[in-house]
Amino acid sequence: MKVGIVGLGLIGGSLGLAIKQAQAHPATQPTIANLPWTVLGVSRRAETCQHAVSQGVVDEADVDARLLTAADLIVFCTPPGTIAPMVEKLKPQLQADTVLTDVSSIKASIVAAISSHWPNFVGGHPMAGGSESGLSAAQASLFEGRPYVLTPTASTPPEALARVEALVRCLKAKLYYCDPVAHDRAVAWISHLPVFVSASLIAACGTEPDKTVQSLAQAFASSGFRDTSRVGGGPPELGLMMAEANRSALLPALYAYREQMDQFIQWIETQNWTAIALALHQTQQARPTFLSDRDR
Amino acid sequence: MKVGIVGLGLIGGSLGLAIKQAQAHPATQPTIANLPWTVLGVSRRAETCQHAVSQGVVDEADVDARLLTAADLIVFCTPPGTIAPMVEKLKPQLQADTVLTDVSSIKASIVAAISSHWPNFVGGHPMAGGSESGLSAAQASLFEGRPYVLTPTASTPPEALARVEALVRCLKAKLYYCDPVAHDRAVAWISHLPVFVSASLIAACGTEPDKTVQSLAQAFASSGFRDTSRVGGGPPELGLMMAEANRSALLPALYAYREQMDQFIQWIETQNWTAIALALHQTQQARPTFLSDRDR
Repeated sequence: MKVGIVGLGLIGGSLGLAIKQAQAHPATQPTIANLPWTVLGVSRRAETCQHAVSQGVVDEADVDARLLTAADLIVFCTPPGTIAPMVEKLKPQLQADTVLTDVSSIKASIVAAISSHWPNFVGGHPMAGGSESGLSAAQASLFEGRPYVLTPTASTPPEALARVEALVRCLKAKLYYCDPVAHDRAVAWISHLPVFVSASLIAACGTEPDKTVQSLAQAFASSGFRDTSRVGGGPPELGLMMAEANRSALLPALYAYREQMDQFIQWIETQNWTAIALALHQTQQARPTFLSDRDR
Repeated sequence: MKVGIVGLGLIGGSLGLAIKQAQAHPATQPTIANLPWTVLGVSRRAETCQHAVSQGVVDEADVDARLLTAADLIVFCTPPGTIAPMVEKLKPQLQADTVLTDVSSIKASIVAAISSHWPNFVGGHPMAGGSESGLSAAQASLFEGRPYVLTPTASTPPEALARVEALVRCLKAKLYYCDPVAHDRAVAWISHLPVFVSASLIAACGTEPDKTVQSLAQAFASSGFRDTSRVGGGPPELGLMMAEANRSALLPALYAYREQMDQFIQWIETQNWTAIALALHQTQQARPTFLSDRDR
């Protein structure tokens, strides 16, 4: 099987490394299908292509996407907005049975956009990442034990799904299936909402009018502020993409959040300590139900 | 100097260990005054007293606070609400020049409550801690390089302040001075507000009515949710204490937060992507100004 990877950053690079490692140790990968797999990489930058080959991330790489003409499976690891235009452009050069998939953190709009002109498309979302980005941060074990969501629809050809499933098994990821819309609502809660919750915290802390208090706040901020503000201080383009591409699921999550916040504010205003104690007890109980052992 | 520690948990235990370590290596502690120091510990539990002595955290320990009658400096490492009643009770047995200090995360109310009947009081707040609690988590280096805030007032005797300063230097902490009210406003922003921001996130995620989406959210939650929800899933009594004891500083911080959140919601509603991109760029820029190198 020939696997094409478009975009050789953290995710694309780690995909390549994981496939190449599975090749090197086929005995530990009983489920890997149609060995040997060849990995073809495409990046906008010639330098990244060279690095990817020299570091054993891919077998071949090129800035020209025509390298993928013979691919059986192509994984798009570029920003969500770039995928549909790229598929449009590549379309005339692809074999009809080539399967396409992506790794975007939103699914409904992408599945709708691509499936309509390339039926052999399966939406995917590996729940893996890290604070580092780029090819140099790539690691073969990035997806191991992490959720990898596939969002086939009623019209997804079973053979197309099987090909992407083979890839996910090769990565040793934990496979989940769900509806694209349900996926987007789920990630709105646990991934997109936290970005705006966290960004609002940083923005609020910047509004203290007293310069002395502001300096003290900056000097005293510790692990509580560090953790709560982390995703709100991340790359702006990531938060912007979430808001734009998942607006319809994010807004209801933000409204629900504002209601909870208003409730806490009202309890503090009215000194309803019993209600606050109960609510904080419930959040303490609820948090572990959202975390795997790995994240606790 | 005889140093009494009331409450032998993470903070009290670490204080004891740090002082004992400084005793063992006086050459590395040029600023430590009036060596040798003796450490006296008081805990409600006899078992904790025994552990503290056997583990070299204190020289002597007792469940009876009368052990502290001869102390030159007493550090209260128990919850904020317990300090004033304990001072009241200890008062008849203390020498008039004994200096008292505490380690609570709120200062204005405690400074007002204690100073009125014990002038030799200096409010203190070491900005150190960890996810573990209790004596077994104590470590001599807990305060090293971390901020340690003292909140003397116009009526604080200089000799009392000097005695607490000697303790802070012994811990190798980074000494800050500020007004108790300014302290409470600063910690409201970076320590107390995050707890309610974070708890509201957990509470909001629990409101998803569709059980399938709820299960997916739980399965997909990863480092972003883990970090943003950490302090909101902590001990309820901690958040409750912050809300009760620092209500007057916390409420304005919550109002400012709600305004920022409303602003983000409005921008997403009106699809004002330019404003969101700019705001997220600003939060990305602002976050590092709140973090020491150690926390980045």
